[in-house]
Amino acid sequence: MSVGEVPQDRLARAAWSGLAEPGDPVAGALVEVLGPSEALALVADVAADPGAMPALPPLGSANQDRVRRSLLGWAARWQPGAARDWADWVTRLGGKLVVPGDPGWATRLDDLGHARPMCLWAQGDDSAELWDRTVSVVGARAATGYGEHVTAELVAGLVDAGVTVVSGGAFGIDAVAHRAAVAAGGRTAAVLAGGLDRPYPAGNARLLSAVAASGTVVCEVPPGRHPTRHRFLLRNRVIAAAGAVTVVVEAAWRSGALSTAGHAVGLLRPVAAVPGPVTSAASAGCHRLLRDGAVCVSDAAEVLELLDGTPSCAPPTGPPPGPHERMVHDALPLRGERSVEALGRECGLAAPDVLEALGSLELAGRATCRAGRWRRA
Amino acid sequence: MSVGEVPQDRLARAAWSGLAEPGDPVAGALVEVLGPSEALALVADVAADPGAMPALPPLGSANQDRVRRSLLGWAARWQPGAARDWADWVTRLGGKLVVPGDPGWATRLDDLGHARPMCLWAQGDDSAELWDRTVSVVGARAATGYGEHVTAELVAGLVDAGVTVVSGGAFGIDAVAHRAAVAAGGRTAAVLAGGLDRPYPAGNARLLSAVAASGTVVCEVPPGRHPTRHRFLLRNRVIAAAGAVTVVVEAAWRSGALSTAGHAVGLLRPVAAVPGPVTSAASAGCHRLLRDGAVCVSDAAEVLELLDGTPSCAPPTGPPPGPHERMVHDALPLRGERSVEALGRECGLAAPDVLEALGSLELAGRATCRAGRWRRA
Repeated sequence: MSVGEVPQDRLARAAWSGLAEPGDPVAGALVEVLGPSEALALVADVAADPGAMPALPPLGSANQDRVRRSLLGWAARWQPGAARDWADWVTRLGGKLVVPGDPGWATRLDDLGHARPMCLWAQGDDSAELWDRTVSVVGARAATGYGEHVTAELVAGLVDAGVTVVSGGAFGIDAVAHRAAVAAGGRTAAVLAGGLDRPYPAGNARLLSAVAASGTVVCEVPPGRHPTRHRFLLRNRVIAAAGAVTVVVEAAWRSGALSTAGHAVGLLRPVAAVPGPVTSAASAGCHRLLRDGAVCVSDAAEVLELLDGTPSCAPPTGPPPGPHERMVHDALPLRGERSVEALGRECGLAAPDVLEALGSLELAGRATCRAGRWRRA
Repeated sequence: MSVGEVPQDRLARAAWSGLAEPGDPVAGALVEVLGPSEALALVADVAADPGAMPALPPLGSANQDRVRRSLLGWAARWQPGAARDWADWVTRLGGKLVVPGDPGWATRLDDLGHARPMCLWAQGDDSAELWDRTVSVVGARAATGYGEHVTAELVAGLVDAGVTVVSGGAFGIDAVAHRAAVAAGGRTAAVLAGGLDRPYPAGNARLLSAVAASGTVVCEVPPGRHPTRHRFLLRNRVIAAAGAVTVVVEAAWRSGALSTAGHAVGLLRPVAAVPGPVTSAASAGCHRLLRDGAVCVSDAAEVLELLDGTPSCAPPTGPPPGPHERMVHDALPLRGERSVEALGRECGLAAPDVLEALGSLELAGRATCRAGRWRRA
């Protein structure tokens, strides 16, 4: 096997995106300690001679045996020149390679630590603002009309507030979230589990083109890779990390959306869930999240409160009426009038307490007096 | 005005139930410090001579001026012999007077401290077991079909578990809760805001008779008293205190059910809310409670978990598959077979990792091997 040239850092990250599976923390640690190119050189060395293991740098919690086995795995995939081919392919698709440090890099992904994507293969807007104010909106593929309605309302409100709506491009809630953002003239980002050349599900290919035009479509695996189940689960960590807040609209008791929510919790990001009828299996996962501490949200304002930290409604004005005011108001006649003494007897209150309560009620326009006798205003 | 004889403790409490408004902490403190009869003697003294104020015992936080004004209010209502008349009246209605210390006293009410009811006027079962395992189920008068359905299901499950269902006898959720408990052959208790002779609302009079036959109807005010708005709000504290757990099924953004929930929070009792569609105004109060920390419940099992402290479902059995197992399973063909080497290349894993994952998958019955080549089972 020809080992070939080891590409420089930028393209080395592209190569790594094809060697290590998404979120592999051993690869992430090796790349961080040695840099992408030098780490890649190790893989090339092992590919050239699997028997002769190179000396390894200390990698914290990953033991040396674990790293050696990983190197053998990556070496089995090593193809010199593949990264360049992928980059060319993606350029032909109208996309580009984005690596940490690029202006268009979603810096929230850095919170994933060693599980941070090696790079993103992206199609669409690569401006820094795209990832500024983000909310991930995810949910069931088998969404109900209720879930679709709520998602569309929620997303329209988020877009109005300048939020980029992140989701997974799937059928159901994801698709409605992207579609509503596009329809509202807002920005949206789809994070795919497979390569950019394999929009999945195929039925959403047209929607994903619209997403790329209104925002971006990204993935962390190179072109040609299938969206396997494992990659779906790991993709969810990218959705959770890309959004400052994660909202689950509908989700079954077991659902990929709960995995996204779990990743967001792990990142200490706020997780919100939209409640629904307890008779709807499509909301069971949301209710499970609410029991586990997710914030109950009913509209965009409550999500924006989590994003921006401001309360969604003003506190009630004026003090509530006290017990004496309530008792005296209850005792005031609607027709005719009543004396302070009679009110006191009815309420079991002394005259000063009755007068004090009547004063408050009069100020609030709820009681009126004529010749020392009172009735409701 | 004739002062008359001061009745003994039991009947003195009955008298107090007509002098002080529900939950009056000054009356509660006075009765606790002096005992019901001696405290009542003070009221009789003030009624006989409102000018000559008696010496008062120290009453903690209630200042002396406050107590004197209260005494004047109570004295204005003082009618010697009224307590005896009320007791006779209630006996004729088939009810009885229950005071703290009686076997049929709902001891959870003692947590209200000085705001504990002076007594309960009760019609129905007065056994101690009635108040043993209790859940208060409350909600909107303007309930929807959804809320009624969920209430009926919830109550049936609670009754099956031997729970007494406490509610307020109102239209809507309250009525469904009582009715479902009666229908299931269970026990239920209605806490009224007015006197026993004034079942309110009148449209529920027949239901309240059935409640008395299957449990009890109670109130803390003597016969003849109207259910005023003030008494409704104070009645809610009794519902909250009588239930070991309070569940709100449907409630508007402003709702009496939220006042009941607030009292339960004040008593450090668990509060649960049933979610509903965010598009339904009848669930807005429940969602408000969920945002304020109420526990989200979908069925009786989850309420019983709050009551008994046991989880409502068993933990999942067996460890979840790890990332290697998932990756290798994704790479196993459905038709034909694949070598360990090919699987390693596909997954970016070294042979020992592939073999370990295949071993787990084979044990779980998800992979099968023929002549060293593997496929999905």
